[in-house]
Amino acid sequence: MASTSLEFSSLDAHRAWLKSQARLPRGFRVGATRFGFVPAEVHKPAAMTLTLVALDQPTDAFAAMFTRNAFPGAPVIVGRRRLSSPTVAAIIVNNKVSNVCAPGGIDASERLCAGVAALLGVRPDEVIPSSTGVIGWRLPIEAMIGALPGAVEALQGESVLPAAEGIVTTDLYPKVRRAAVGDGSIVGIAKGAGMIEPNLATMLVYLFTDCDVPRDELRSSLRAAVDASFNRMSIDSDTSTSDTVALVSSRRVPCDLEAFRAALARVCADLTEDVVRNGEGVHHVIRVAVRGAPDEAFALGVGKAVVNSPLLQCAICGNDPNVGRLVMAIGKHVGAQAGDLDLSRCKLSMAGRVIFADGAFRLDPAAEEALVAHMRGAELYSSVAPADGLTFRPPVRYPPHERAVEIAIDLGLGKAACTVLGADRSHEYISENADYRT
Amino acid sequence: MASTSLEFSSLDAHRAWLKSQARLPRGFRVGATRFGFVPAEVHKPAAMTLTLVALDQPTDAFAAMFTRNAFPGAPVIVGRRRLSSPTVAAIIVNNKVSNVCAPGGIDASERLCAGVAALLGVRPDEVIPSSTGVIGWRLPIEAMIGALPGAVEALQGESVLPAAEGIVTTDLYPKVRRAAVGDGSIVGIAKGAGMIEPNLATMLVYLFTDCDVPRDELRSSLRAAVDASFNRMSIDSDTSTSDTVALVSSRRVPCDLEAFRAALARVCADLTEDVVRNGEGVHHVIRVAVRGAPDEAFALGVGKAVVNSPLLQCAICGNDPNVGRLVMAIGKHVGAQAGDLDLSRCKLSMAGRVIFADGAFRLDPAAEEALVAHMRGAELYSSVAPADGLTFRPPVRYPPHERAVEIAIDLGLGKAACTVLGADRSHEYISENADYRT
Repeated sequence: MASTSLEFSSLDAHRAWLKSQARLPRGFRVGATRFGFVPAEVHKPAAMTLTLVALDQPTDAFAAMFTRNAFPGAPVIVGRRRLSSPTVAAIIVNNKVSNVCAPGGIDASERLCAGVAALLGVRPDEVIPSSTGVIGWRLPIEAMIGALPGAVEALQGESVLPAAEGIVTTDLYPKVRRAAVGDGSIVGIAKGAGMIEPNLATMLVYLFTDCDVPRDELRSSLRAAVDASFNRMSIDSDTSTSDTVALVSSRRVPCDLEAFRAALARVCADLTEDVVRNGEGVHHVIRVAVRGAPDEAFALGVGKAVVNSPLLQCAICGNDPNVGRLVMAIGKHVGAQAGDLDLSRCKLSMAGRVIFADGAFRLDPAAEEALVAHMRGAELYSSVAPADGLTFRPPVRYPPHERAVEIAIDLGLGKAACTVLGADRSHEYISENADYRT
Repeated sequence: MASTSLEFSSLDAHRAWLKSQARLPRGFRVGATRFGFVPAEVHKPAAMTLTLVALDQPTDAFAAMFTRNAFPGAPVIVGRRRLSSPTVAAIIVNNKVSNVCAPGGIDASERLCAGVAALLGVRPDEVIPSSTGVIGWRLPIEAMIGALPGAVEALQGESVLPAAEGIVTTDLYPKVRRAAVGDGSIVGIAKGAGMIEPNLATMLVYLFTDCDVPRDELRSSLRAAVDASFNRMSIDSDTSTSDTVALVSSRRVPCDLEAFRAALARVCADLTEDVVRNGEGVHHVIRVAVRGAPDEAFALGVGKAVVNSPLLQCAICGNDPNVGRLVMAIGKHVGAQAGDLDLSRCKLSMAGRVIFADGAFRLDPAAEEALVAHMRGAELYSSVAPADGLTFRPPVRYPPHERAVEIAIDLGLGKAACTVLGADRSHEYISENADYRT
């Protein structure tokens, strides 16, 4: 799925690579500012980062896709309206509070856009808002309006890194990917580490390009790229209320449309890889290649059922090749969806080794040993016993490598295929989410 | 859902109560035996318990429901055949190895039934086999045949407790429930603590009665009772390959059919409560009452989506009323299933307090405090820091109480309702399942 195979041995090495990816395309500036506030819902001090992306000139070439969660956040509702704006000039993003189902949420988002517009000298409907963080809390809108000039002051046209850092919540590290297209480029950033099973869109992803692609082509290119990347991963099966992918072109550099689409697909696939690998508590990325399916949707469903099985996730976390749980997960999904299908030609492999065929497993101590070695090789880190005995924190804040636990499923039912990325389930995920808001 | 509200302050108190529930109906005997073996798939010593239930006389009154997983275990395949046997005389159950997708699995199950039949002087097709444990491993059939006489020798007609203890795997304690029906009774036992989201049947459940109910009525009564109990719970969303519920009557005592059906429904509901409360790593049982749904299946889907949300599960484990995740989970399901439904009349309560209505949350520090207190009151235990820093084990081996985190959802869409039981997600679940087979 990913086009690269990176390895990093230190935080500094990862940081240097991020910087090399981060050069902004022509026509964009980004800035971020951080400030404190007290949520109205719980009286505990919190901090928020406001991230501003501004175009040198408003552009008519922009595309966005949003969550299909039936309780979308206010910024998603406002963002959908913006799709019919003639032009956009800026994106404003805050973390910590997602502004979902909060009283007066849409008004708050529109006020923020108006504040940005006044400072930049553009129209409010040229500003796209995004919020991520706790669901149900109200935006601290007065404090945010007060902080906006700081974000404008920080604007610079060199690096997207301040934005990649500004939008994160539980992410361990910022995510930046780039691709060249002729003389132009596409640069993408993403946030998201939990509540990740996108449904037609995903977490927060911003893609910037100077390639001159008109609005309609931009939008169809984004749909195709998202469908083949973000929509084929899951960290925890939970679909965010704030998922947003936006793509904006400054239209500075002429480009070949096919080359652009290929580059966009690669950047999206690379960011998908980054998001899964940096998922909350992820020790192992799991790559499930499904083929022999009656259609692609069925293949996708099987792949999702496998990566979302809590029991398989735990086994993989423990480097335990409990492959019976793989069969359980496939059978659970097929049994619930289409109980009359004949799975007698189903074949399963792990690490390139056939472990199941003709209705029965092929297991022995040598296979067990090979599978354990494969899982250990794909491990990003092992849990470290926490100082307080209970609160697990990941010991690394960069991705040591891009290896995955490789599972191949041939359903023996048809010609369709699909590859899905997922992750294991660990103590660090529980610790992160048992008391996320404090 | 449960008909009781039990509290226990010690293992001894729970044990005494179990004994009071365990008196066998007329016409049944149970016995169990434990022995060691070495699995062919991994060369590490393991132990297995064989549990035998024998009727004094073969009976034509029996019913069974099995998993809808598309990779059913060999005993499930054999068990389905037994449904057309004229009579049954015994049930033989082993733990540790589930005999699912193992080479020669059906032959092994049939050999075991033949061994039981020879010892009891009945026909092989009068014996129902069940296996639970690791998926993919082969039954140690020679050792099992060798151990059978020990199980026969242990047969006694007083207590079902040896069977309730013999069938467990990761369960912390045996599960026994009973109900009187006139002069007769129904006694049920269950095992199951993980891989629990039954689909038309569930884990291993055996129900014994001396009430004289003919086969057809017995089977329809079981379908109704299972549908309203086991099919409305989930511990981890994973559907077992071995789920089996069997109900056998010795037909010794005349009974009123309506009273029987009500008693059966109560025993099934009580065992459902037990299974969830003893789920792997469960700190809190979650009861989700959904109403205002267009139909019951929709209500069930919403309830399942809520109890299966990993993020909500983690928040509840941490006594963190992160109710935004409740809205996320409902919206994820509705958005994926029926994106055009109008949820503007949706109302949510927790602990009897309205927390969401008219599209927005009603949260403040007082509500936060009340919700935290409710969650703490429903907690079964807190995690204890493990000696090795990593391997969490539950500190109690009995259910201290039957309180639950109470969530009510009125979708505002129709008249249908459904209540679903689920559980939170903890370090103990991860520890249990990261290396289950060793």
